[in-house]
Amino acid sequence: MSLREVQEEVDKWVSQLKSGYWSQFEIMTRLSEEVGELAREVNHKYGQKKKKTAQEGSDIEEEIGDIIFTLACLANKEKIDLDECFKKAMNKCYGRDKDRFEKK
Amino acid sequence: MSLREVQEEVDKWVSQLKSGYWSQFEIMTRLSEEVGELAREVNHKYGQKKKKTAQEGSDIEEEIGDIIFTLACLANKEKIDLDECFKKAMNKCYGRDKDRFEKK
Amino acid sequence: MSLREVQEEVDKWVSQLKSGYWSQFEIMTRLSEEVGELAREVNHKYGQKKKKTAQEGSDIEEEIGDIIFTLACLANKEKIDLDECFKKAMNKCYGRDKDRFEKK
Amino acid sequence: MSLREVQEEVDKWVSQLKSGYWSQFEIMTRLSEEVGELAREVNHKYGQKKKKTAQEGSDIEEEIGDIIFTLACLANKEKIDLDECFKKAMNKCYGRDKDRFEKK
Repeated sequence: MSLREVQEEVDKWVSQLKSGYWSQFEIMTRLSEEVGELAREVNHKYGQKKKKTAQEGSDIEEEIGDIIFTLACLANKEKIDLDECFKKAMNKCYGRDKDRFEKK
Repeated sequence: MSLREVQEEVDKWVSQLKSGYWSQFEIMTRLSEEVGELAREVNHKYGQKKKKTAQEGSDIEEEIGDIIFTLACLANKEKIDLDECFKKAMNKCYGRDKDRFEKK
Repeated sequence: MSLREVQEEVDKWVSQLKSGYWSQFEIMTRLSEEVGELAREVNHKYGQKKKKTAQEGSDIEEEIGDIIFTLACLANKEKIDLDECFKKAMNKCYGRDKDRFEKK
Repeated sequence: MSLREVQEEVDKWVSQLKSGYWSQFEIMTRLSEEVGELAREVNHKYGQKKKKTAQEGSDIEEEIGDIIFTLACLANKEKIDLDECFKKAMNKCYGRDKDRFEKK
């Protein structure tokens, strides 16, 4: 699946909602919630806190998916292209930040 | 660009680093940092705090890219497929959560 | 209750645990989890997503408390004084940032 | 300094601003930004990414202070007592969660 298709799938789903896209601040609060759920799964898998039974069923895979979904909402709202976003991140890796991590 | 290619690009970059992939907790801390930078950009664009000159140059597009990069690091570390992640998120939209948002 | 007492209460509780204080990265991942739970409560109270019954019972008050708890863990681990932390934040308000927000 | 005084100090500062307290969603986005700045400091101190010179000057102490400030904003906005928040967190430690962590 391409980043373009991710954005289209999300748009198709949001388009049928009465609310449409939320405000940027609401999307950011949702992002915070989803990142927290991923953190919880990572804590449960690698940390020292025992999982409460009620929370079982979700997992790292699902939570990463929810974050991508939320980012696509923000990108669509902002008319931003996710391809462009990722390209910028990779360019920074090979450009500005290329000496910030020690090479093999 | 496909989600598969995103994961491959990130893997190619990390493979040349001496450190390799960081621990899951380090990746989560990085994710928190990147989400914070996106929040800062959203605050600057839509909120009431004036931007300090020193921070100019980054933007919403770039920060979304950095988050995707970080998620791909975690997915690669966990041997998780981003396609699978997003599919799970969409399935939840049309399944479990289908009545949690009012339709048009 | 004073910030000093907050740190002491937390220390008393952690001291009886086998694990002691977690690593800084683990504490940050926990912080991310707690902030996410607060975000969820704010979303439920002011946003458009209906609450799932299973999650009821927690609230904004409780989630703010969990974040303070987690910050006190980090402060104790780092031998940092919360009084000092807050003083720095207020000094910045009246110093560096004093013209970044419009006055009445 | 007491938690009560923290809330009063913050209220005194916000009261002189034209904007007054922000919306809950804006405060949450700010919280996300501040947590990200703390994550950056922790990454710099304990992680593998070299600090960029431009970002020097802030530190873990200062970032924890900014988070407490932001939490006090939300508490004031919500007419919530931070003492009550922390009490709830500690009660959970000694009540609901008392068997979730192994004792010495």
